[in-house]
Amino acid sequence: MDARSVRVVVLRLGHRIPRDHRITTHVCLTARALGADGVLVADTHDGQLVETIKRVSEDFGGKFFVESGMAWRPLVTEWKRSGGVIIHLTAYGLPLPKVIRDIRQSRHDKMIIVGAEKVPAELFRLADWNVAVTNQPISEVSALGIFLDWLSNHDFRTFTGGKLTILPTERGKRIVEN
Amino acid sequence: MDARSVRVVVLRLGHRIPRDHRITTHVCLTARALGADGVLVADTHDGQLVETIKRVSEDFGGKFFVESGMAWRPLVTEWKRSGGVIIHLTAYGLPLPKVIRDIRQSRHDKMIIVGAEKVPAELFRLADWNVAVTNQPISEVSALGIFLDWLSNHDFRTFTGGKLTILPTERGKRIVEN
Repeated sequence: MDARSVRVVVLRLGHRIPRDHRITTHVCLTARALGADGVLVADTHDGQLVETIKRVSEDFGGKFFVESGMAWRPLVTEWKRSGGVIIHLTAYGLPLPKVIRDIRQSRHDKMIIVGAEKVPAELFRLADWNVAVTNQPISEVSALGIFLDWLSNHDFRTFTGGKLTILPTERGKRIVEN
Repeated sequence: MDARSVRVVVLRLGHRIPRDHRITTHVCLTARALGADGVLVADTHDGQLVETIKRVSEDFGGKFFVESGMAWRPLVTEWKRSGGVIIHLTAYGLPLPKVIRDIRQSRHDKMIIVGAEKVPAELFRLADWNVAVTNQPISEVSALGIFLDWLSNHDFRTFTGGKLTILPTERGKRIVEN
């Protein structure tokens, strides 16, 4: 089972403006670059964030959505009701290397939850997996990136349909218009 | 050759207060959790950041340093002069999967450079490797996390000597005082 044939959506909790604007932007860029389908930013509407990421996708390709402002609980319960599973990234969870095989083998759509600071205790119970990317204090940005990289078996995806393509190069910057 | 028997130090460029305070904190937490020896924050002194990370290390163990305020160019040239290599993480570089084997096999101390926004063009020439964690816009926080994870062959390190230990658990939070 290829993890990419199921939907992978990131749910961002606890986003506050302006405090989290940059961090949540990094969450979205990471989710996109590592092959998630999109990000839902719970509870807070952030039109500027949605626009920023939309522009990145138009420029660099791929299909990727960011939506913001919906209450988190109905998003989670509806996801579960439709047969999807919930993976909550937390330093308190089970170590990634111990659970990644089971998660990869699951044929269900996956919602990956990343919080800013504390998340509701309820979430630890609602989650199918509480997963620790190291049981150490870490950033939710890198935890998400590393988790998605392991989920796709360290196989980076490619993007098509953008206006611009970066050409990998040893020194300097090469970028072409398509 | 185990990558961990050589020094791995992260150099953070372009840090500005207050703009980058939280992102650079995430850079430091990521560097520590993924096994780097420390972070040098170039050009800008940030005592609050140094204190925050020092407290995390005292609480959760391991040896890890953060220093700030030194000019970046002498740091880089001195590192090279002492036989160390420079790895610059940039979306414009060569794809991580293509270069990671060579980097892992290098017996030299490694300085990993991550910038905030634009970095000096000179850096692309000074670097032994310009490496792209995906050739897509991404966060330097997740790029660093993924790079360090690949560098250590996806083998998370353990920490000893802290006041607190998180006990991995399926649901909830378990943390013990040592």
